[in-house]
Amino acid sequence: MVVAKVWVLKRRPVGEPTVEDFQLVDEELPPCGDGDVLVTAVYLSVDPYMRYRTRQVPLNTPMVGSQVSRVTESKNTKWPVGTYMVCYAGWRTHTVYTAKQLQEGSAEMISPLPDLQDLPKSLSLGAVGMPGNTAYFGLLELCKPQAGETVLVNAAAGAVGSIVVQIAKLKGCRVIASAGSQDKCAWVKQLGADHVFNYKTKSVSEALKELAPEGVHCYFDNVGGQFSLEALPHMTDFGRVALCGAISTYNHEDKGILKADSPYSPMLMISKQLRVEGFIVLRWQSRWMDGLNQLKQWVVEGKVKYRETVTEGFNNMPQAFIGLFHGDNIGKAIVSV
Amino acid sequence: MVVAKVWVLKRRPVGEPTVEDFQLVDEELPPCGDGDVLVTAVYLSVDPYMRYRTRQVPLNTPMVGSQVSRVTESKNTKWPVGTYMVCYAGWRTHTVYTAKQLQEGSAEMISPLPDLQDLPKSLSLGAVGMPGNTAYFGLLELCKPQAGETVLVNAAAGAVGSIVVQIAKLKGCRVIASAGSQDKCAWVKQLGADHVFNYKTKSVSEALKELAPEGVHCYFDNVGGQFSLEALPHMTDFGRVALCGAISTYNHEDKGILKADSPYSPMLMISKQLRVEGFIVLRWQSRWMDGLNQLKQWVVEGKVKYRETVTEGFNNMPQAFIGLFHGDNIGKAIVSV
Repeated sequence: MVVAKVWVLKRRPVGEPTVEDFQLVDEELPPCGDGDVLVTAVYLSVDPYMRYRTRQVPLNTPMVGSQVSRVTESKNTKWPVGTYMVCYAGWRTHTVYTAKQLQEGSAEMISPLPDLQDLPKSLSLGAVGMPGNTAYFGLLELCKPQAGETVLVNAAAGAVGSIVVQIAKLKGCRVIASAGSQDKCAWVKQLGADHVFNYKTKSVSEALKELAPEGVHCYFDNVGGQFSLEALPHMTDFGRVALCGAISTYNHEDKGILKADSPYSPMLMISKQLRVEGFIVLRWQSRWMDGLNQLKQWVVEGKVKYRETVTEGFNNMPQAFIGLFHGDNIGKAIVSV
Repeated sequence: MVVAKVWVLKRRPVGEPTVEDFQLVDEELPPCGDGDVLVTAVYLSVDPYMRYRTRQVPLNTPMVGSQVSRVTESKNTKWPVGTYMVCYAGWRTHTVYTAKQLQEGSAEMISPLPDLQDLPKSLSLGAVGMPGNTAYFGLLELCKPQAGETVLVNAAAGAVGSIVVQIAKLKGCRVIASAGSQDKCAWVKQLGADHVFNYKTKSVSEALKELAPEGVHCYFDNVGGQFSLEALPHMTDFGRVALCGAISTYNHEDKGILKADSPYSPMLMISKQLRVEGFIVLRWQSRWMDGLNQLKQWVVEGKVKYRETVTEGFNNMPQAFIGLFHGDNIGKAIVSV
């Protein structure tokens, strides 16, 4: 009998999550029946959106998330032992998938690993995975940046932001990026951003007054809060915002539905005629592989660079997750089992 | 010599505007030179957006706005005495336009009155004018409502909202509308809205829980503030918002650029993948007459009904304007000279 290690949500985090909000438990897995496979996690993803899920996941059930896993036992000819998959198994070391769950189009979001050649398999959780597609579709489909336009990206050393910077450059845009440390800023500059500022040492207002005197056409917002409050007045008329995340506010207490603390001021949106679109990357599910194939090609050709911050050990999942809110990661945060 | 009566902005309103914020002054007009015309205001428009302009118009200069005026002296063969125009002359009884200003494409926004047949000429300031086009383009271009979808409109007895209700019905939508009195609600029901509620006696949350259990696909927002705060959580995934105005907040004190009191929550926009677009109707200037011709046809055919609340006397411009914030008007607020 296989016993999986599973991180369950023990209690709802209040403010910044702590290790004590999670609990590591054992879960006995059923044996593999006909058509089933047992997979073993190799890399797991921690992402900011998981903070939002900590408000939704039922207590004492596994935390949700993607992983790269390897088939270690198989009664399914399509998934022989040794093949890899990307799956949304959650924070767990082992998972049994039934024949039905393995069928294409099931709710389990299981997909074979793209052919990454010599690249690390963990890229399937980053630059050639969900974060990559978030950058690719969010920027291109919602901002529709035109060559010569100014694109603003925050959290630009993060898993999504770093790809946004590079795609915007590939499309001929002028890129203004921000990150939260000198090291991060240096890396983002290497990625090709025209201007990078450290929002911890320079106010967004000041930076944009200086760097975008003619305004920002496209804003890819990962951060929200005070950053957006200061950035939005610098948008051009008819500016487009791809509203991807608001990590600066994820640990704020939820005041319920009827709260009014958004930086997206109606009068600003009206007077500048801004188009603001919130999105979740799964809306482009039908074009998922198109995005990944393009990203893979760019990575292979060296046109899109990536970094990963790898935390060793499944036991450290909560720490790796909490680190996201301290800006611990440069590039994609990964846990390696 | 012709002396125009002109309402200038005497001081910046604080909170709700008062009559004392404006001052009636005499202005001596230059004589008509070659190619010039003198026009005399017949109907003037008061609109909520003018509250926003009271933050911008230089003090002791005329308030801005549209009027229907009649050529009363002419040295321009294209504009003989007795012809009518719609022009953005501001709050004034008489205006001299030079040949240059009368040229097509000048910044003066002068246009001949559309052929309204037996309909009142004041419609050019309402259903067949800027507010009509605001409803027409804002709803159709930004919300893109599909037959069978649910459309929410507030200030639905107003100049814009009443037209939105009717266009949405013409497009086969289910319309939920709100207004602020029993009389207004009764009229909006006559316009064809499927459901109308009085937001002063029923909370928006309660109303939408009851009337839109499957969610609102399109929201035409004229009101903002608490209304939007309660309405937005009832949007469907991929809901579209035409952000036209925020009259409930126009009298709030401006806290400067860095205020964070918007109902447009990032997390709500992300989780529901909402598209929110602020707009000013002049963006469709190149298609202006297409909108007006369609609206005129609908009005002539009785498919779009209208009402006007007419205040007699140029001296009462400020009172008519202030009345907008008390909900005094049903349909378009007009001042007749």
